[in-house]
Amino acid sequence: MPRQADGLCPAETRTARVCEAGLALDCGRRLEAVTVAYECYGRLNAARDNAILVCHALSGGAHAAGRHQGASKPGWWDVLIGPGKAFDTDRYFVLSSNVLGSCYGTTGPSSIDPASGRPYGSRFPVVTIGDMVKVQRALVDSLGIGRLRAVAGGSMGGMQALQWAVQYPDAVQSVVALATSPRHSPQQIAFNEIARRAVMSDPNWQGGDYYEGERPRSGLALARMLGHVTYLSDTGMRRKFGRRLRTDGVQYGFGREFEVESYLEHQSRAFVDRFDANSLLYLTRAIDYFDLVPPGGTLRDAFRASDAAFLFLTFSSDWLYPPYHLEEVADAARAAGRPVGYREVPSEYGHDAFLLEHEAQEPVIRAFLAEGDGYNPWRHPSLESLPPCPPPAAATRPGSPSASWPPSVP
Amino acid sequence: MPRQADGLCPAETRTARVCEAGLALDCGRRLEAVTVAYECYGRLNAARDNAILVCHALSGGAHAAGRHQGASKPGWWDVLIGPGKAFDTDRYFVLSSNVLGSCYGTTGPSSIDPASGRPYGSRFPVVTIGDMVKVQRALVDSLGIGRLRAVAGGSMGGMQALQWAVQYPDAVQSVVALATSPRHSPQQIAFNEIARRAVMSDPNWQGGDYYEGERPRSGLALARMLGHVTYLSDTGMRRKFGRRLRTDGVQYGFGREFEVESYLEHQSRAFVDRFDANSLLYLTRAIDYFDLVPPGGTLRDAFRASDAAFLFLTFSSDWLYPPYHLEEVADAARAAGRPVGYREVPSEYGHDAFLLEHEAQEPVIRAFLAEGDGYNPWRHPSLESLPPCPPPAAATRPGSPSASWPPSVP
Repeated sequence: MPRQADGLCPAETRTARVCEAGLALDCGRRLEAVTVAYECYGRLNAARDNAILVCHALSGGAHAAGRHQGASKPGWWDVLIGPGKAFDTDRYFVLSSNVLGSCYGTTGPSSIDPASGRPYGSRFPVVTIGDMVKVQRALVDSLGIGRLRAVAGGSMGGMQALQWAVQYPDAVQSVVALATSPRHSPQQIAFNEIARRAVMSDPNWQGGDYYEGERPRSGLALARMLGHVTYLSDTGMRRKFGRRLRTDGVQYGFGREFEVESYLEHQSRAFVDRFDANSLLYLTRAIDYFDLVPPGGTLRDAFRASDAAFLFLTFSSDWLYPPYHLEEVADAARAAGRPVGYREVPSEYGHDAFLLEHEAQEPVIRAFLAEGDGYNPWRHPSLESLPPCPPPAAATRPGSPSASWPPSVP
Repeated sequence: MPRQADGLCPAETRTARVCEAGLALDCGRRLEAVTVAYECYGRLNAARDNAILVCHALSGGAHAAGRHQGASKPGWWDVLIGPGKAFDTDRYFVLSSNVLGSCYGTTGPSSIDPASGRPYGSRFPVVTIGDMVKVQRALVDSLGIGRLRAVAGGSMGGMQALQWAVQYPDAVQSVVALATSPRHSPQQIAFNEIARRAVMSDPNWQGGDYYEGERPRSGLALARMLGHVTYLSDTGMRRKFGRRLRTDGVQYGFGREFEVESYLEHQSRAFVDRFDANSLLYLTRAIDYFDLVPPGGTLRDAFRASDAAFLFLTFSSDWLYPPYHLEEVADAARAAGRPVGYREVPSEYGHDAFLLEHEAQEPVIRAFLAEGDGYNPWRHPSLESLPPCPPPAAATRPGSPSASWPPSVP
């Protein structure tokens, strides 16, 4: 993957048509075929055994690394994907696709329903994390890849990575799951439900058929503001915003007076311009339904058929998916005899840390992947040889509040 | 205070007209006079030195204890106020009033503006915690009470209790502040701003002039759902709801499928029936503005003029006002030479714990108040003689999830 003058690699989104014979969904309905948007970085080797699938979170897309022509920002995980980076495109073929139900090129509620010639809207079938993984599998198959060197992702992307190991155990050599959960907790379901209610309460939502009129901007903005707060940490917000006002002195009104208020306003406005409200409904529902525990079984049972190795990374200040969520998964995978590496990264970035703390993640992910290169099963079942996480970058940051820290996440 | 057959005491809300010469507000505007709703329990002694003011939280009112004729539920702090209880009405005269800006009998945005003969709506001046305390002071004065034996409250009520010690240091002998903060953090401001946006985005809000038409029920319900989640804890919600569904099996839709969703729906509907949307705007703003630190000073400076003793109670799973908020206040008050008692109560109830964990609070509050009876300054400046909190009640609860635990908070 050649670099551009500024060190970033060019990237381009392609689309493929998969599941031409139809896709049977977990809800019992079918999609006739699926269009999937994807990007790839690096070269697939002749044995086709160096492919790593990276899976995006709620609001992400296929554009994970490099930079689109003319764009000012790189892909969402460019800090970890590229030549010499943790997911080293000089060694690995990295594949990234937009999930089913999203709005960035893969079939979703804003796509045209072939039956009516109009956008699906709320007539789109409810999809699950398992359904997303089925589409990814079809894409991987279409590229002639029988077994993935790794599946990696954070947040909703981490759920997909875990789901791969359960759903297609033969097709996954290793899993890197970050800042995620084996099942959504009631607190998280509650936040998602409030976000959905915000969208569906917006009169412009119109039962989901808003594509030819005004969009439910206000409801979607509210949903995003709420989501955004759950992505940051209490400590990080105190450091970044404190109680600073936008103007001199208190205005005694209901405008945006505190910097944190205008930050949320700005972030939510940018989100509303780029994301589809119905996709937010469908993807949050998929997350709520996600439960790795098989019916009538235990979390350990989920890993019985897998022969993969697992790396789990959590972040100390992530209160959306606190470390205990993946600790439980690590214990279950170990109990099922799987090689497991687990690290809790000290961070003040909250849930967003999986997109930001690349210095802490890089050596651990690199060592984990190197561990599996060339042989299987893995050399060290406990993966105790993985390096420790470097000290938190926060220790080298200025202690005083700074408007530029933490950086905002796309 | 006589008990009824079921052990509860009768209660009745009265109203008083105070600040007849006008009330100068922190925002620079004036109210001509203020109506204040209040209740009292126990008897004021001849020396008028046994009065305890209890201050309610965001959605509370004057009805703190006993039971109104025909009502099924007692006041919001009945577990702690009454004969032989922590705030023992056989010894103390307990006074409770509805705050300025609320909707339960005290002047607020739903009151009639004498200038127009119509409800104030958004023309009501923005009020602060300090303004609420001015009205309470006027009520206390009107009862001939020069100095309060104690001011007590949790959450927004705790802010008022702290504010009393700063604003009227001569008039407060002791402060009991629970589950509160010396200043609202950016995370909390963000949640409040989202709640306000939910209300103001509801087309029925009509700029605040909805009193003669449809009320902004949908926006207010959203705001309450969000607030409610911040009052519970992750652990408490997992225990109470888990991922239980209302029906057999997943429905693959956007209805209320998880029990936690229908619980929030039910709670928010009850709230919408009883609370005014504009009051939610004004009270959350007052909370956001609250900052005990004097301009250009430190938290310690806030306590310089006070000769009160302080009891601070926090709750381990309260993530709205985590224990570190009151720990900081305790350190500052100690540094200013004040006698301070501090206890962190182990609890799974989250922020709501201050309304529920009465078994843990009772002995500590009782001992703290007894410590100050009859003399001043206090015997033990460090208040080390206060008893420890009893072991958490949770330890005696069944370990399995139960729909009846934790109890819902009014």
